[in-house]
Amino acid sequence: MKLKAKTMDMDAPDMMVVLTKADSATLGVKENDRVRLTRGIDSAIAVVMISDACIGEGEVFVIDELMDKLRLSDGDEIDVKYSVSPDSVRSIRRKMDHEKLSPEEIRSIVQDITDSKLSRIEISAWLTSLYINGMDIDEIAAFTQAMVDTGDRIHFDRTSVFDFHSMGGIPGNKITPIVVAIVAAAGMMIPKTSSRAISSACGTSDFVETFCNVELSASELKEISENVGGVLAWGGSQNIAPVDDIVIKVEHPLGINPRAQMLASILSKKVAIGATHLVIDVPTGRGTKVPTIEAARAYARDFMDLGEALGMQVECAITYGDQPVGSAVGPILEARECIRVLEGFKHPSSVIEKACDIAGMILEMGGYMNGAARAREILKSGDAHKKFMEIVVAQGGDPELKAEDLVPGEHVFDVVAPSSGYVHNINNKDVVSIAKAAGAPADKGAGLLLYKKKGQRIEVGDLLFQIYADNPAKLNRAKDMAYKYMPYEIEGMLIKRIAPTRMR
Amino acid sequence: MKLKAKTMDMDAPDMMVVLTKADSATLGVKENDRVRLTRGIDSAIAVVMISDACIGEGEVFVIDELMDKLRLSDGDEIDVKYSVSPDSVRSIRRKMDHEKLSPEEIRSIVQDITDSKLSRIEISAWLTSLYINGMDIDEIAAFTQAMVDTGDRIHFDRTSVFDFHSMGGIPGNKITPIVVAIVAAAGMMIPKTSSRAISSACGTSDFVETFCNVELSASELKEISENVGGVLAWGGSQNIAPVDDIVIKVEHPLGINPRAQMLASILSKKVAIGATHLVIDVPTGRGTKVPTIEAARAYARDFMDLGEALGMQVECAITYGDQPVGSAVGPILEARECIRVLEGFKHPSSVIEKACDIAGMILEMGGYMNGAARAREILKSGDAHKKFMEIVVAQGGDPELKAEDLVPGEHVFDVVAPSSGYVHNINNKDVVSIAKAAGAPADKGAGLLLYKKKGQRIEVGDLLFQIYADNPAKLNRAKDMAYKYMPYEIEGMLIKRIAPTRMR
Repeated sequence: MKLKAKTMDMDAPDMMVVLTKADSATLGVKENDRVRLTRGIDSAIAVVMISDACIGEGEVFVIDELMDKLRLSDGDEIDVKYSVSPDSVRSIRRKMDHEKLSPEEIRSIVQDITDSKLSRIEISAWLTSLYINGMDIDEIAAFTQAMVDTGDRIHFDRTSVFDFHSMGGIPGNKITPIVVAIVAAAGMMIPKTSSRAISSACGTSDFVETFCNVELSASELKEISENVGGVLAWGGSQNIAPVDDIVIKVEHPLGINPRAQMLASILSKKVAIGATHLVIDVPTGRGTKVPTIEAARAYARDFMDLGEALGMQVECAITYGDQPVGSAVGPILEARECIRVLEGFKHPSSVIEKACDIAGMILEMGGYMNGAARAREILKSGDAHKKFMEIVVAQGGDPELKAEDLVPGEHVFDVVAPSSGYVHNINNKDVVSIAKAAGAPADKGAGLLLYKKKGQRIEVGDLLFQIYADNPAKLNRAKDMAYKYMPYEIEGMLIKRIAPTRMR
Repeated sequence: MKLKAKTMDMDAPDMMVVLTKADSATLGVKENDRVRLTRGIDSAIAVVMISDACIGEGEVFVIDELMDKLRLSDGDEIDVKYSVSPDSVRSIRRKMDHEKLSPEEIRSIVQDITDSKLSRIEISAWLTSLYINGMDIDEIAAFTQAMVDTGDRIHFDRTSVFDFHSMGGIPGNKITPIVVAIVAAAGMMIPKTSSRAISSACGTSDFVETFCNVELSASELKEISENVGGVLAWGGSQNIAPVDDIVIKVEHPLGINPRAQMLASILSKKVAIGATHLVIDVPTGRGTKVPTIEAARAYARDFMDLGEALGMQVECAITYGDQPVGSAVGPILEARECIRVLEGFKHPSSVIEKACDIAGMILEMGGYMNGAARAREILKSGDAHKKFMEIVVAQGGDPELKAEDLVPGEHVFDVVAPSSGYVHNINNKDVVSIAKAAGAPADKGAGLLLYKKKGQRIEVGDLLFQIYADNPAKLNRAKDMAYKYMPYEIEGMLIKRIAPTRMR
């Protein structure tokens, strides 16, 4: 039927139109059905909402994006027709029924999510089905390839392109600039993209952007990598595996990250960037995404099988994740600690060790012997710092950048030990919650500085950690949270295994 | 943080607000997270969308419904804070993990859906989990009870209240007014509520409303039932199991109806209306919801177990569902056929037989012997018609109502047999699609009249069925569909079992 288009002036979550009750009855469509909108040679599909709130019979509300796509102005007449659901909905139902999907079915689901042809209801059903029924390695390989193919790819004129990825879930994991600098200083190509925080207090891009620009286009990323050997880009600035951004918004409120989705998401970005050799860091321990060594081994097996299916050489590092890496959590605090290590500071050793171990594995994939030792030499010699500064300058940073120039939030609160004993545990999730309450990652100066780590002896009144904030209200909020969820567990040498979390 | 409220002038699918990118970053909320809105003593939870489209920093778009709830005017300042997800999201995740939910968990999910505290993403994940992982009878009983408790209930001052329900999926199933009239004429109380079409061409309420008002409030329903003994109400006019309306909107685009949801949905309405004795009609056969006798037996077992758990006497009738019931499909056509039977016509026999068999089962539950024979007597004697007219008049219908006064659509097309042979099959789904293309159920005069049924011998050129429409464009659309999806399969006596659907 012919209806008059009215602009709906907002970013809707779905590609939607609003019809009156009467018109939807005449068209025979229900809420969440689809209609095809046609005007002249332009045509698009939209999901139907029904409301008599602000439109009258004969009118249809059309979101901005669709108005533009159909080149419509307010009041233009368009043809609205019932349209069946995309075939991909049937494939989602097949996954609900625990069937194996063909590469074509998987591709059409990924394409339809990318093109906003599936609504949030359907994407949620897809992710829930993936969570419950899973995918085998063939399906995940097809899923990965579909995620690559629905976005842009970068091609390097090299036989070997190196990359690494940390599964995350561990606060203070600021090793990326150190690893990239070491590997690039060894003459190997490492075009590293990173993410911003999703649920954490600080992603790699959140702290790198405190000292240089991370929002690089695909061509800038390529050019810098080719000139300097390495890059520290935010992965959201290129159109790489764009489906991920849509999926994350639906995963987030459900609090799930289905294994197949996680594996395909990680590997697709590496395939798209042209990586041929990949090290995956799997932080393992209490409060990370991977609580046990057995679970870490299963992930490692998945990554390697998937790498094989995709023609990529993959090695995995199962790393210690029981407590934060280093001392700093939060954008400026992490940036400062990271750059200090590059400048030659010998502390914190957990950062230096982890960065050199991971860099060492990459160096060995590139043909070096005794990779970790070689990595330490490159760091110690100052070559890594020199390479790091080349990358910073290429990304628009200050050629005179010093760690000491980075100043955290001016509002500081000291948290002291409520009792004497040994630090039995530092709870990652509580550390993250407090840093977020202080304003991280949006407030660049916000975060935590840890003065004690696991196994250290402390006396009552000793400084355990400092909270930094850019804003006094947030400092207070973080302070309250620190007393509510004390992240340190302090016990005598005799640990009461029956109630290890009694202090919380 | 304090933000200025701006009215968002539409019915949104979720209880939502729109924040700017900057403000959501400051609050630390992502899309689909929740915030608590507070103004004075009023407070509410909303789901977050993020957009810079029509609001500036410091402003928040709030949908009408929430503006009213918080007694806000445009420009009022409100406090917006991050809020955790409701606990019911955790219970949904437990169902994803195939855990058994407690009655309290199930109640909180149902309550939160009813109160719009769960978004469509979460409801979709819930239904997908129910579809895949299911519920046992204890859980379904708790689910049913929660659906009852979150809506209104009707209490009759009787020890026995009778009811029946047809699982549907079979076109032309117009027996309800006949069953209700027979049972009420026998002096038994049967306060029957029915639905409108969801995906079918005509629900019971769609055709009953062509001759009387079906939109009865709970008190009208009660009063008419008490005065006349029976009623033919639309179930959507009372606030009975209101969660169902929300759930259906999410089930519909996914094309699923999880067993637990279906059972709880049906039984909750019967519990809420005070039914003590219930007959369930399970139409079984090709193209219905229940394709095989085995599946029908499983449903019957479920209904009876669930009835026991809820303290209700339940009996099931597995009925023939391979082809439409009677000849008419579509509101006025079905109303006419139904009233003709009540007026004493001997045709179509499938309608009379089914109505009397179901009514007979109910009569036997009420203590009558030989229920089906008794039902036929009540129908034949004219007592059923007299009772039917009492109900029609009580519901505001014409006291002089005659079947012949009901006139179907003026635009008619005859579909004739393309070949000679026996009617081997009439495809229910195609019948429904054609009737819907002709305009049913919104166009009251639209539908199909079938002249031949299964097993009949036909010659090429014989009239198979007529399409009726209120509007010539829809008649054409239905005609095209009739040639594309010919619902009749005509074969010789020797049926080629290898390709029974080759004609389509």
